[in-house]
Amino acid sequence: MTFDPATLRYDDRGLIPAIAQDHATGEVLMMAWMNADAVARTLSTGRVTYWSRSRQAFWVKGETSGHVQRLVELRLDCDRDCLLLKVDQTGPACHTNRRVCFYIRVQDGQEVELMAPEA
Amino acid sequence: MTFDPATLRYDDRGLIPAIAQDHATGEVLMMAWMNADAVARTLSTGRVTYWSRSRQAFWVKGETSGHVQRLVELRLDCDRDCLLLKVDQTGPACHTNRRVCFYIRVQDGQEVELMAPEA
Repeated sequence: MTFDPATLRYDDRGLIPAIAQDHATGEVLMMAWMNADAVARTLSTGRVTYWSRSRQAFWVKGETSGHVQRLVELRLDCDRDCLLLKVDQTGPACHTNRRVCFYIRVQDGQEVELMAPEA
Repeated sequence: MTFDPATLRYDDRGLIPAIAQDHATGEVLMMAWMNADAVARTLSTGRVTYWSRSRQAFWVKGETSGHVQRLVELRLDCDRDCLLLKVDQTGPACHTNRRVCFYIRVQDGQEVELMAPEA
């Protein structure tokens, strides 16, 4: 079946959540949002492109930071309302300069920071 | 710092996306939604509990199917608007009876089904 980004299920803002996972290590790096055009651009360029809700603009990951995500594989879920991107991540994925965005663990009722920003 | 579910950033429906990852294999199993009470219940019971948007009710994963998710670790992201759950998954995670929800790969413009429902 030919894939058409218009067949995905977007929310009332026209967005779908996209989970980025390191294709080599399996680490979940981050979650951000795409619209149908961002999905199409990601596929055609191989450069992961989100939709920035704060800036209301395409966000080519790493365009300013250099911390680009190269798309290795795109997957859809059963309900077609969530994407999983397996990516080749250059540098830290998080805007805080940490390797991943999920760096806070809840442990025994406390928040524990698991990693420091990279130098 | 003590963790309080009220300090997470929920959307205008009072929900936060939660990504479930197999703690042993690193596979991303599914993505669903939680409200503050579902986060608190998940932490207090160790049984992953989502909020069903279609039923508008708590959804204790596996309560009817037996395909429960035991919480191994809860993580927050940098913006406190997404959760990563490392879980111990019993049976298939997907309601289609597949091991994971992300079983469709987009490859050369085509949708390819990667796995069949389990017997």
